[in-house]
Amino acid sequence: MGAYDQLKSRTRADYPYFLEYRTRWSDNDMYQHMNNSIYNILYDSVINSYLFEFCGLKPDSSPQYGMVVHSHNDYFASISFPACAELGLRVNKIGNSSVTYEIALFEKGVDQVKSVGEFVQVWVDRDTGRPSVHGIRQHVRDGLQRIMVDTHLSKL
Amino acid sequence: MGAYDQLKSRTRADYPYFLEYRTRWSDNDMYQHMNNSIYNILYDSVINSYLFEFCGLKPDSSPQYGMVVHSHNDYFASISFPACAELGLRVNKIGNSSVTYEIALFEKGVDQVKSVGEFVQVWVDRDTGRPSVHGIRQHVRDGLQRIMVDTHLSKL
Amino acid sequence: MGAYDQLKSRTRADYPYFLEYRTRWSDNDMYQHMNNSIYNILYDSVINSYLFEFCGLKPDSSPQYGMVVHSHNDYFASISFPACAELGLRVNKIGNSSVTYEIALFEKGVDQVKSVGEFVQVWVDRDTGRPSVHGIRQHVRDGLQRIMVDTHLSKL
Amino acid sequence: MGAYDQLKSRTRADYPYFLEYRTRWSDNDMYQHMNNSIYNILYDSVINSYLFEFCGLKPDSSPQYGMVVHSHNDYFASISFPACAELGLRVNKIGNSSVTYEIALFEKGVDQVKSVGEFVQVWVDRDTGRPSVHGIRQHVRDGLQRIMVDTHLSKL
Repeated sequence: MGAYDQLKSRTRADYPYFLEYRTRWSDNDMYQHMNNSIYNILYDSVINSYLFEFCGLKPDSSPQYGMVVHSHNDYFASISFPACAELGLRVNKIGNSSVTYEIALFEKGVDQVKSVGEFVQVWVDRDTGRPSVHGIRQHVRDGLQRIMVDTHLSKL
Repeated sequence: MGAYDQLKSRTRADYPYFLEYRTRWSDNDMYQHMNNSIYNILYDSVINSYLFEFCGLKPDSSPQYGMVVHSHNDYFASISFPACAELGLRVNKIGNSSVTYEIALFEKGVDQVKSVGEFVQVWVDRDTGRPSVHGIRQHVRDGLQRIMVDTHLSKL
Repeated sequence: MGAYDQLKSRTRADYPYFLEYRTRWSDNDMYQHMNNSIYNILYDSVINSYLFEFCGLKPDSSPQYGMVVHSHNDYFASISFPACAELGLRVNKIGNSSVTYEIALFEKGVDQVKSVGEFVQVWVDRDTGRPSVHGIRQHVRDGLQRIMVDTHLSKL
Repeated sequence: MGAYDQLKSRTRADYPYFLEYRTRWSDNDMYQHMNNSIYNILYDSVINSYLFEFCGLKPDSSPQYGMVVHSHNDYFASISFPACAELGLRVNKIGNSSVTYEIALFEKGVDQVKSVGEFVQVWVDRDTGRPSVHGIRQHVRDGLQRIMVDTHLSKL
């Protein structure tokens, strides 16, 4: 299988963390489907919910925070208001200052995945807006590790 | 009690229909609270979810649909990502072509209401964009009636 | 003229401050018109642009800031992507801690006003989240005064 | 230069079509910068404005329309409300049924590019929701061709 087909075959079992988001009326665009920009909003939301809960992130005071420097997404099938979306999250890679998340969107009650994307964050010090030479702090790293998938051993 | 204090005293028991919406990262603005515009997005969403489920609304094909002509809202206390919002809905008034909805936002796990507002819709024919002389169709009216609160008899 | 008809007759001359906002694809909802929630987003934007420029507001550090406690809006006619919106702003009332703004939305190249609404802000101290006994600071008050319309003398 | 550095060196001269979008208060997230999801909203907007103006797109009636199947974006530097964004657009590739757009975001008055991304659309027939065997219609293709950049001859 090529990379694209592998992503399209993702199942809920590929993601250790899940949150459900009800779609909103304004998520649909003139084509009666959820607009592509909403996927990024939901991806950002599940990532930050995880960071709040398991990595101690406080957006107004934590000494470090993650800035998105790259994102990409493949859209396999559409979802429409008023469906419920289920967002799955995992970490594919942790570097010294960067993290690569993989996020998938499912529709409640539907097996096949709707979209799969990645966000790359660089973690910067609040004071300088630049990455620390010491990299991501240990307690954040520990939290991220819990949902890290060893992509060398996995079917990807 | 004045009208403002009555609204501020609303409880979940005042609303016959409820949906839960998880807040999203981008709902918070620079003051770390959900922005006022998101309340309208959620109000619109719970109204239209109800119309889909109980009034047969299909936004791309129904012969009539409701256009918002007036909205107002009182904000009593703030809510912040990543909290879950619970939206309560009722109908306060049904006219020949217009409907007045009352919507309240609660935070999951918190008793006191965060905001209460009203939306007034005028129902128009898809073909003309104007209200029909016959007013809102009976099956829509029947659906709306189910969550109508008799505000003359109620404490409001 | 009743209050509603007066609002519907508003012209650009009724507003001392204007900004142009290009509509976005996602502003339109399934009915092919700008969704009602976007009006609030644009109202909030023109108010805060004014506060940045003429009242020295810095959302992350100013000792006081305004919280929206009430909003209402009348929608007279629709606007659709990709039109440009022109937002007019004035101040209708300044109290000790509160400000009432009136905002109107016009479409570039179209005379008749599309919507008129009001936002009421309460200004709170950053430290306490509560209004100061001394009320809104003088330099903010001075900035707001510049676009205050004396509604007793005006045609409203 | 690697691909990333080439993108980071993009200038306004690399894009034949430009539109200006004023940022909105709610575009900023809790980190006081425009949220990553807003880039997609603006990319989508400049693409669809172009399709309206030069390719005859009518979202509610055109026999074909484009669905986004892939998007990616590199974020080089941030932009914040109340700045004005300038969106540049070009077409990198036209296939039988697919189009690859490149979009760049600049800040008014600032030379260096803030972000560069690509959207891939597949054009489907309204009736079937599937690509036509005849591919994208000629008048759409003609419009797209006008902002196509020959990436083999260009510095990319």
